[in-house]
Parts: sequence; structure tokens; C-alpha cells
Amino acid sequence: MKVLRGLALLLVASSTVVATRPVLADDQDVIDYRRHIMKTMGEQVAIIGMILEKKAPAEALATHADVLAITAKTAKAAFESEIQGGEAKPEVWGKWADFSKRMDALVAAADDLAKSSKQGAAAAGPKVKLLNCKNCHDTYRVAK
Amino acid sequence: MKVLRGLALLLVASSTVVATRPVLADDQDVIDYRRHIMKTMGEQVAIIGMILEKKAPAEALATHADVLAITAKTAKAAFESEIQGGEAKPEVWGKWADFSKRMDALVAAADDLAKSSKQGAAAAGPKVKLLNCKNCHDTYRVAK
Repeated sequence: MKVLRGLALLLVASSTVVATRPVLADDQDVIDYRRHIMKTMGEQVAIIGMILEKKAPAEALATHADVLAITAKTAKAAFESEIQGGEAKPEVWGKWADFSKRMDALVAAADDLAKSSKQGAAAAGPKVKLLNCKNCHDTYRVAK
Repeated sequence: MKVLRGLALLLVASSTVVATRPVLADDQDVIDYRRHIMKTMGEQVAIIGMILEKKAPAEALATHADVLAITAKTAKAAFESEIQGGEAKPEVWGKWADFSKRMDALVAAADDLAKSSKQGAAAAGPKVKLLNCKNCHDTYRVAK
């Protein structure tokens, strides 16, 4: 009975995995996809930082903040398949509830930044810190 | 008289440059800014390519095409200051009229792709080629 119950649980777990996992060619593709997303965010955060330091054109702030906010919405789904590798630590899946919550917080913070950016750099500045990139990377990204 | 006319022309030319050039900290910042933009486009084009090859989730296509289209709109302005360096060839400014026209064509093609992407991969596929990345890179980007 115990074995059967275990098997039933395993089947439920498997079907959950199948349901959430998109059809993808292979594991490297999953890794590549999420890296492209994270790199895009890295480039855009770098630009936003430059703008706040007056090193890039201020009139582009709202646009780049929009790009960041839109891209952030794609990030969590890109990690949903448990394919280890790239710069993702095993903790991404080991602590999925926390990781997932942080990704949702990133989406909210990026949305907030995008809204504030429409009012200019002074309004956007304090919002950038709330993205909290480093905090999450320290826990979930392999150190370079 | 000839000298004065030359000086007047020079002043007109200078004021044009001042008018179009944003206030930026230094030349490396100008180079960094445009590289962040071009890299963002590279990451997004890579994702779109993966989706069309069924290597990344199809449901994300329209989002990534939007990000590309929005980012493309920032690219031309990022090259307006004639600051050579990075991967930009001197031809960017030497043939500015052509470069500028191609950047406008990129914006139009990315917009077209974004619209088609909302109808799915089959509609988007033929539009990707019209981005014409390689064609422009061959002329204006330093070979790696």
C-alpha cells in the first residue's frame, strides 16, 4: 500500500512537472534562454544606472525602464524547469518558494521603477535599489 | 572674406554638433551606452531565433519582439555623437546618411516583427530576416 501511495505521489509530481515545463529542444536551450533574459536585464540596469549618474541620455530613462519591466516578467517562467547549469545555483530549485517570491518582487519593483521613471531621474533613483539584484544574485547565482 | 565664411560655416557646424549631442560624462560612456543597447538587441534577437527554432517558449515571442522593437528605437540616437570606438567602425559617421537610414529601417522592421509576433511564430518567421542585422554589421561593425 505504502509503495502504491508513493507511486501515486510520484505520478502526481511528474504530471506537475510536465504541465509546467514548456516543450524545449534540450537542457542547454533552457539555460541559454534564461541567460539571454538575465543578460538583457543586466544591460538595461547598467543603462539605467548610467542615466542616474548622468552618463547616458536622461530622455531615454523611461524607455529603458519599460524594457526592464517587460523583460522581468519573462524571468520567472524561464527558471521554472529544473535544469541546473549556467550561472544558476541549485538553490534556485532547492528554495523555489523563496526564489519565486523574489522574482515576483523583482517584477513589482521593475514596474514601480518604470512608473517612476516617467517622472524623471529624481523619482526613479530611490526605486532602483528596490530591484535588489545583488541580494538575489548572492544567494542564487554562481559567483564569477 | 573666404576665411570669415569658413569660420561662419564652422560655427554653424559646431552648433549643430552641440545641439544633437547629449550631455555625457565622457567618451567611454557614449561607447558603453550604445554597446548596452546593441547587446540588448543581440540577446533579444537570439531569444526570438530560439523561439522560431522551438528551443524557447513560444508564448514569450510577442513579449521579446516588443522588447526588441522598443530597444531599436533607442539605437540611432545612441550613435549620434561621433565618438569612435567600441565595435563601431568609422563608417558609422563617415556614411551617416546611409547608417541613419538603416537604423530607421531596423526600427520599422522590428515594429513589423512585433506586430506579426502577436499572431504567432508562423507570421513572425519571415519578418525576422528583414531585421537585416548581418547586412548592417558587415558594413558598420568591427569584425570580431
